[in-house]
Amino acid sequence: MRLGILISGRGSNFEAISNAINKGKLEAEIAIVISNRANAAGLEIARERGIPIRVIPSQGVDREKYDKIVIEELKTHEVELVCLAGFMRLLSASFVQAFPNRVLNIHPSLLPAFPGLDAQKQALEYGVKIAGCTVHFVDEFLDSGPIILQTAVPVLDKDTVESLSARILLQGHLTYWRAIQAISEGLVTVAGRKVLIAEPQLEE
Amino acid sequence: MRLGILISGRGSNFEAISNAINKGKLEAEIAIVISNRANAAGLEIARERGIPIRVIPSQGVDREKYDKIVIEELKTHEVELVCLAGFMRLLSASFVQAFPNRVLNIHPSLLPAFPGLDAQKQALEYGVKIAGCTVHFVDEFLDSGPIILQTAVPVLDKDTVESLSARILLQGHLTYWRAIQAISEGLVTVAGRKVLIAEPQLEE
Repeated sequence: MRLGILISGRGSNFEAISNAINKGKLEAEIAIVISNRANAAGLEIARERGIPIRVIPSQGVDREKYDKIVIEELKTHEVELVCLAGFMRLLSASFVQAFPNRVLNIHPSLLPAFPGLDAQKQALEYGVKIAGCTVHFVDEFLDSGPIILQTAVPVLDKDTVESLSARILLQGHLTYWRAIQAISEGLVTVAGRKVLIAEPQLEE
Repeated sequence: MRLGILISGRGSNFEAISNAINKGKLEAEIAIVISNRANAAGLEIARERGIPIRVIPSQGVDREKYDKIVIEELKTHEVELVCLAGFMRLLSASFVQAFPNRVLNIHPSLLPAFPGLDAQKQALEYGVKIAGCTVHFVDEFLDSGPIILQTAVPVLDKDTVESLSARILLQGHLTYWRAIQAISEGLVTVAGRKVLIAEPQLEE
């Protein structure tokens, strides 16, 4: 399965996906990494690993127009699944329609709790005892698409935003590629808001 | 610690708390079980166990007036901690003020997700992969007070409202008395929305 990964910064989830591929855990290929910021640190990692990169600056560009350019780039690289990895822009409805149930995102909370920015800070301020991360299909609304996988993460009394974020990020790295792998194996079906994941067939 | 338990129906969490006391896991005493419905099944269980019961019908009674009668009954029985166990009424601000940080509730979701009625159905319809239960202090708003403990529960593809509810209920029974025990041991402090639970001291 050919992946297109969209980043805005460090893209640590991109790195985790790439690691899972390199270790042979995830059967997929990263066809292209696209960043909307020229200085995204993830670009350097992609470059080192010989993964094609493309910077498409978003500042001052109309959303529909921007998304059209990105869609074209993804299609050129025959991308089958788009993975957002810290891509700090909402996608237009036409982007979502160009890749129906083929755009993934990971969010650092157990959605529907704490959508949007600073989810970990929101969680700490609310005082939850269990936080987590959510891999979901992307629709045109914020952090609202059907959920593929979630992982729970404990919140400790002594947690800061940084320590909680680090714990969630770690679990995210272990969760995202499993969602991609399930899709790649054809195990995932979407029925309304419900995402069903079939058991993988054991190999002979 | 003397407990007052408020029920409206089966009160299975009341039964679980009573079981934890009888097994010597929870050091507390149930001073009174109050039901706002005369036919609540939990009353029979209390009767069998020799726990004092009182029916205070709520239908048609003004909230402030009702709560005043309940507060009086609780004070008469020298209740130190009020535990809601399927008590289907919002409490007034004056009730909460009468027992500041001394009213607990358990809700069958990982709050702040899915407050209110039919939390398990809400969770299934949203398509979350992790549900759970929350023991929290009660304030005058719905399912909104500071969180003491949460337990995560997996949602399975084949789940119905009934099967998910049963799984959450079971975990709730294992969670509620632990929150009460922590309060009874003086380990719990509330700082704004954050509830901190100190480590219990090991006995010599």
